[in-house]
Amino acid sequence: MRPVAKNIVSFLIAIIIGLFIWFSPVPEGVTKEAWHLLAIFVFTIIGIITKPLPMGAMALMGLTLITATKTLTLPEAFSGFNHSVVWLIVIAFFIARGFIKTGLGARVAYGIISVLGKSTLGMSYGIMATDLVLAPAIPSLTARSGGIIFPVVSSLCKAFGSEPHSHPRKLGSFLFLSAFQGAMVTSAMFLTSMAGNPLVADMAAKVGADINWGTWALASSVPGLLSLALIPLILYKMYPPELKATPHARQFSLDKLKELGKMKTQEYIMLTVFIILVFLWISGSWIKMSATTAALIGLCFLLIAQVLSWDEIIKEKGAWNTLIWFSVLIMMATYLNKLGLTQWFSEYVVSHLKGLDWKAAFSVLAVVYFFSHYFFASNVAHIGSMFAPFLFLSVALGTPAMYAALTLSFFSSLFGGLTHYGCGPAPILFGAGYVKVGAWWKFGFIFGVMNIIIWMFLGGAWWKLLGLY
Amino acid sequence: MRPVAKNIVSFLIAIIIGLFIWFSPVPEGVTKEAWHLLAIFVFTIIGIITKPLPMGAMALMGLTLITATKTLTLPEAFSGFNHSVVWLIVIAFFIARGFIKTGLGARVAYGIISVLGKSTLGMSYGIMATDLVLAPAIPSLTARSGGIIFPVVSSLCKAFGSEPHSHPRKLGSFLFLSAFQGAMVTSAMFLTSMAGNPLVADMAAKVGADINWGTWALASSVPGLLSLALIPLILYKMYPPELKATPHARQFSLDKLKELGKMKTQEYIMLTVFIILVFLWISGSWIKMSATTAALIGLCFLLIAQVLSWDEIIKEKGAWNTLIWFSVLIMMATYLNKLGLTQWFSEYVVSHLKGLDWKAAFSVLAVVYFFSHYFFASNVAHIGSMFAPFLFLSVALGTPAMYAALTLSFFSSLFGGLTHYGCGPAPILFGAGYVKVGAWWKFGFIFGVMNIIIWMFLGGAWWKLLGLY
Repeated sequence: MRPVAKNIVSFLIAIIIGLFIWFSPVPEGVTKEAWHLLAIFVFTIIGIITKPLPMGAMALMGLTLITATKTLTLPEAFSGFNHSVVWLIVIAFFIARGFIKTGLGARVAYGIISVLGKSTLGMSYGIMATDLVLAPAIPSLTARSGGIIFPVVSSLCKAFGSEPHSHPRKLGSFLFLSAFQGAMVTSAMFLTSMAGNPLVADMAAKVGADINWGTWALASSVPGLLSLALIPLILYKMYPPELKATPHARQFSLDKLKELGKMKTQEYIMLTVFIILVFLWISGSWIKMSATTAALIGLCFLLIAQVLSWDEIIKEKGAWNTLIWFSVLIMMATYLNKLGLTQWFSEYVVSHLKGLDWKAAFSVLAVVYFFSHYFFASNVAHIGSMFAPFLFLSVALGTPAMYAALTLSFFSSLFGGLTHYGCGPAPILFGAGYVKVGAWWKFGFIFGVMNIIIWMFLGGAWWKLLGLY
Repeated sequence: MRPVAKNIVSFLIAIIIGLFIWFSPVPEGVTKEAWHLLAIFVFTIIGIITKPLPMGAMALMGLTLITATKTLTLPEAFSGFNHSVVWLIVIAFFIARGFIKTGLGARVAYGIISVLGKSTLGMSYGIMATDLVLAPAIPSLTARSGGIIFPVVSSLCKAFGSEPHSHPRKLGSFLFLSAFQGAMVTSAMFLTSMAGNPLVADMAAKVGADINWGTWALASSVPGLLSLALIPLILYKMYPPELKATPHARQFSLDKLKELGKMKTQEYIMLTVFIILVFLWISGSWIKMSATTAALIGLCFLLIAQVLSWDEIIKEKGAWNTLIWFSVLIMMATYLNKLGLTQWFSEYVVSHLKGLDWKAAFSVLAVVYFFSHYFFASNVAHIGSMFAPFLFLSVALGTPAMYAALTLSFFSSLFGGLTHYGCGPAPILFGAGYVKVGAWWKFGFIFGVMNIIIWMFLGGAWWKLLGLY
């Protein structure tokens, strides 16, 4: 009876907090719909964390409440299923399946192990290095992390016998979490490593902070490399893999590679599709093709070549699970914004900062900007609704324009690491099933604080040194 | 090698026809986008019928072509996943799963068999009678057919050991197809048995044809009952069930019911949810709750009561398969209409009918209205784009207003039976897997012709007799 009782209590807590918000007096300037949506969102998120029911069921309940209370119309409530990033995420699961199924995943994994396999820590740095090399070239964070890093890490874990339901902590939990937090950092490091970065550079120019590709890369280099260096070390200490040293891994992987023999036709096809995908993702902005369209093309090739059967597609539970819960959360976050709650919140913060010293005021603004990402399911959406007012106010209060612009720009990627729904790769890497939601959020918060300190303070010193402000 | 060669040939045929349309001169008044969409739609439909790849894979290919060629924008291309009827269809699969899983389905099935089980033909009439009784009260055809009839028929087939992959023709193919074609007829029979019916009555009033609930029911009664009587008979002859007479079924089902014993808690919960659903679907128009919202509420109850686990939801392949292919087709059909192709086509037909005798002209108009449903994935969408111009022109050409209005109104339900994507129940009952796509379309056409004759000619005589025109 214990777990049942616990489930009932945590379900009741979510309901009570939701009801409390629902019936609280609506702050001036907030519509009733926005406030009710907030209540349902908080109810859903608490339910997702305390897990009286599985995440998908909680999300479905949130969706049901939204439509049954008419907080949103039906087309609005179902609008999350329409986001192209949601379908990029779904397709990432299928591509990973093909990667693993053909044996190409195992081959690549053994290849990596044969070079870096002496220690788990080494492998985590290897993954980050791969991500860092791809980052300047692939502006779709979801494609890079979900389409390339995800299948490789999955295969790596499989090779060591670490799977979601058997020995996740052996290797997988550590590698997935460091790959995820690493991806947040690599996204922040180049003007072209995240879809929202050109957007923030554009807005920064309006306050006179001219950030070109070189400035961006130079300014991010020191804090970025420091963050990347620390993430695996901290996780290694606080969330250690059970398997640390693997002295025989090199020989083992070479033997395995020999066992695998020559590449099979299916592997060649998969490799070709993979190369096409990387090519399309890199050239996407020139040929004006979205990352999702590219992924669709790759998936069609896999289906035509019968690398994947249609039955395998519709059996891919992880994809459908993620489709449901992430679509619902992205819909909620979108409408919290569209219904004006974000704007009201921005104005509320702003109105309380007048008269403060710029250092204090900007610290508050930046930290609020960072942690308000708990209420967003997309970096770009967060940037769109909060970046400009926060930057403009910071500068108006006396913050040096370049300092404010760089800090907020980098935060616009880094805050994606707070939750398991905060940006595209989150639902994919979380959805792999190696890390529990509690640990995911805990380290999201810890690395959030670490990144704020590294980028805002150390970064600030570095930009001063560079003479950027 | 044979089937592979066949697949390649049929794939090539679909490609060639698609390319032929794509590169054909675009008719005046049609945009390039609309024409290209038509080419992709025809390619997809041919592929779905000839099946070089499974239906879902063909649909995905259509989606990919649409986005890769920029025929539609990404949000437009993914807009099918946003339709609430799509999600009602998806949820119908989950509700059916719960119905079967709890054992309630078997109990209801044995109950039906104990009364009607002497012959397969008798059972098919029993299913139709149930549908007919529910029809005036449940205006969501998808809810009625997908949420109520579908799980009952599934359980009935299971009880006789007829499943999609083992002995589908024993009982299932016949029962599913007659239930489907029957649902088209029951939808046409009452002002309140299909969501689009009040819409057509509204438009009919504009040409002076005042169709109230009573007129509608009276006018439809004779052709409706005749159609319902003929459908199982024709199928029994042309698409016979392998199991026809079941003399021992009554005793067998009574034994089985005894074996099942008292109803279990899970069954009571399922029954309660079922009753709530029927209640919400019936009262939907008064309490202003959509059928999809009602279905979501029912599903939440099933999840909370753990009648269904979340894992069972995401494992429900049929639902995800249908989600993909039906969303893509409904999106294509929507944009064929939005991009003006339907309007162009209506005008094209209209411009060729001037000067004809009204009888000839109306026959052409009505038949064109009926068969153009091959290009629609929703009755309401078809009504919205073609009903008014076709009705107005018919009357302008001299057709008696009431005759034209009634014929086109009834056709607005009946044409849903042409394809496996023409209206809400189609993907669900087809998705059950008992009927091959070729047979589905063949009988769609046959019953289409039958319904045209029965409703337009016999119906016309009946309405004359009633003094309606």
